Amino acid sequence: MKSIIAGHLNQLWEAQPLVHSITNLVVMNTTANALLAIGASPIMAHAKEEVADMVAITGSLVINTGTIASDQLESMILAVEAAKEHGKPWVLDPVGAGATPYRLASNRELLNYQPSVVRGNGSEIAALFTDNSERRGKGADSTDSSDSTLQFLQEKAAEHNMVIAVTGATDYITDGQQLVKLENGHPMMAKVTGTGCTATALIGAFLAVCSQPLEAATAGLACLGLAGEQASKACPGPGSLQLRLLDELYQLSQDHLIKGLKISTD
Amino acid sequence: MKSIIAGHLNQLWEAQPLVHSITNLVVMNTTANALLAIGASPIMAHAKEEVADMVAITGSLVINTGTIASDQLESMILAVEAAKEHGKPWVLDPVGAGATPYRLASNRELLNYQPSVVRGNGSEIAALFTDNSERRGKGADSTDSSDSTLQFLQEKAAEHNMVIAVTGATDYITDGQQLVKLENGHPMMAKVTGTGCTATALIGAFLAVCSQPLEAATAGLACLGLAGEQASKACPGPGSLQLRLLDELYQLSQDHLIKGLKISTD
Amino acid sequence: MKSIIAGHLNQLWEAQPLVHSITNLVVMNTTANALLAIGASPIMAHAKEEVADMVAITGSLVINTGTIASDQLESMILAVEAAKEHGKPWVLDPVGAGATPYRLASNRELLNYQPSVVRGNGSEIAALFTDNSERRGKGADSTDSSDSTLQFLQEKAAEHNMVIAVTGATDYITDGQQLVKLENGHPMMAKVTGTGCTATALIGAFLAVCSQPLEAATAGLACLGLAGEQASKACPGPGSLQLRLLDELYQLSQDHLIKGLKISTD
Repeated sequence: MKSIIAGHLNQLWEAQPLVHSITNLVVMNTTANALLAIGASPIMAHAKEEVADMVAITGSLVINTGTIASDQLESMILAVEAAKEHGKPWVLDPVGAGATPYRLASNRELLNYQPSVVRGNGSEIAALFTDNSERRGKGADSTDSSDSTLQFLQEKAAEHNMVIAVTGATDYITDGQQLVKLENGHPMMAKVTGTGCTATALIGAFLAVCSQPLEAATAGLACLGLAGEQASKACPGPGSLQLRLLDELYQLSQDHLIKGLKISTD
Repeated sequence: MKSIIAGHLNQLWEAQPLVHSITNLVVMNTTANALLAIGASPIMAHAKEEVADMVAITGSLVINTGTIASDQLESMILAVEAAKEHGKPWVLDPVGAGATPYRLASNRELLNYQPSVVRGNGSEIAALFTDNSERRGKGADSTDSSDSTLQFLQEKAAEHNMVIAVTGATDYITDGQQLVKLENGHPMMAKVTGTGCTATALIGAFLAVCSQPLEAATAGLACLGLAGEQASKACPGPGSLQLRLLDELYQLSQDHLIKGLKISTD
Repeated sequence: MKSIIAGHLNQLWEAQPLVHSITNLVVMNTTANALLAIGASPIMAHAKEEVADMVAITGSLVINTGTIASDQLESMILAVEAAKEHGKPWVLDPVGAGATPYRLASNRELLNYQPSVVRGNGSEIAALFTDNSERRGKGADSTDSSDSTLQFLQEKAAEHNMVIAVTGATDYITDGQQLVKLENGHPMMAKVTGTGCTATALIGAFLAVCSQPLEAATAGLACLGLAGEQASKACPGPGSLQLRLLDELYQLSQDHLIKGLKISTD
């Protein structure tokens, strides 16, 4: 898997694909900069009059509901409809999916448009994929990495026919069949806003050059985890970390990935 | 007061409270990062469908009108109504309150919902609290630190039954009875956009763990002033300062506060 | 020209003009910080209720359509109408002008309000100024610096009676008569999102203190090019570059400009 990911990074550098993001207002700058740093070409556009036209010319689409509101949701629906029509891969980041009924309903509406990949933390993924009837029963609870949680992920990925990526101290990525674990990263990354959003954007970048969503999701999280691990060394705080993360994404090499990735597959 | 503030910082670290911000588009990233750096958990959400639900689960609310428009104002009103209903403390940052009639009217409408704390610079506070009938008369004029200005602040805080914090080279915080002065900080902080907005967000963080708004306002401004002072040492410019400010907020200790604060109370 | 630009920088420091920006959501923070770093006073406001009032009190207006949508376009029209009414100079940044029909139409609508300066990259300028009838013919094609492209720029500047600035490895600025070339800058600047938007904002700053749009456009691009060139020296990546660019803008001196600018005029 390491050399496959390294190969995809090379493809990304060569293709410099257009990646269209409709994302939250907090991380728009960071997202665009992370996409540039890894070698992609970001497009940030949300006008209802043009989102479908933009999707038509891009390599992939990133949808992030961190500051979702009704107007933006309409644009997102238009964009994912266009992605379906033009056969473009897309990734959903259901930020805070379980925090309010509105947020859960909005994310579930988007989920119906069949993203290639969904990436969230444990509680977001649990909220999004747990049926209301199951919610007070067993369900998947947050970042629990027990066997029952992994089984839940694999079942939901198979049922929905999409890749699910859960990020945390260990990242889990599954398409319902294969399960990939990544253990790069650093706890200070949680002190920078939007690190998860950057993870999703990088998955979007790899979706544009890689036909296997499982590999694209793994490559995106691998690059972020390794860059974050490097950036956190002797780092005085989250201000420096946010900046160094971009520098490290820019400096990432195939060799770094092959030597530094802590990856295992079942 | 120094040891009280140091104690509140410790409470903040332990509680990691959810702090809900509806703030301006320029500083959303900085605000979220500053809240994370000091130890709080930021929520940025503005959809009318969910703001009230969000307020219900958060520890405090931050309202900043820097890029106010009619849609956002409606969301803010829903949020402050929910804050009143659920007994959540909230802080108002009336950015540019006197610059246009619309901005003044919007901020005064929010003021009617009785924030725990209002924080602004001298001219914003003067515009917000000076009656139209007084405006061409004496009134409080901008950052003038004369006795008449301090008396104006104390009268308005008492009359409105809220804490007023005026920031500048010296920060003044009053609840109408007590007056606190802070003299930390550095002039270069004015060259970073949104330093005042960060001050307000930090006040919001302390409001979530501290039952006395005067102490919360003092703690927020004290942390920012001291972190900014440290961050400005041998600082090559405002780009570096913005980053270092986050690092210093992250590294702030109770010991730093007790040794470094330049605080006096009347 | 170098000493003229150096003189304008001095004027900017002395006047600290209010510069009103209605810009895209990705770069709002960077734009405000760049304006502060060069010595201007940024105002970011877009509410339809107040844009005209804001324009009335500012020195110049910056319009950037990077994340244009119908609501924002309405605000921009109100702002440029006010700029015309009050005789305030303004600059247009037609981000991605040719990417979608909506974007092209929006930018052309704004162009009708006669900006003092239009700044874009080669393909944006070509899309904006090439008549539909010419588009499949010769037209100006992207960043081609051949004589025919320069002739196209000069013709369009003369025809529209405005300054056109095309940025790239070499920047070209013309009012239809004079042609200025600038060769400062560094390729890594293209890896930071919104460097072009910063260029436009700096042009806006100089428009507020300088009666000749050609000089204002040249001064803005000169300052950014030189600061970027300094900031890129031994720079580990685009995260560091974004920060250092602000530091270098802050440290820019008249002496730096006179010694460092690579400028030529026809």
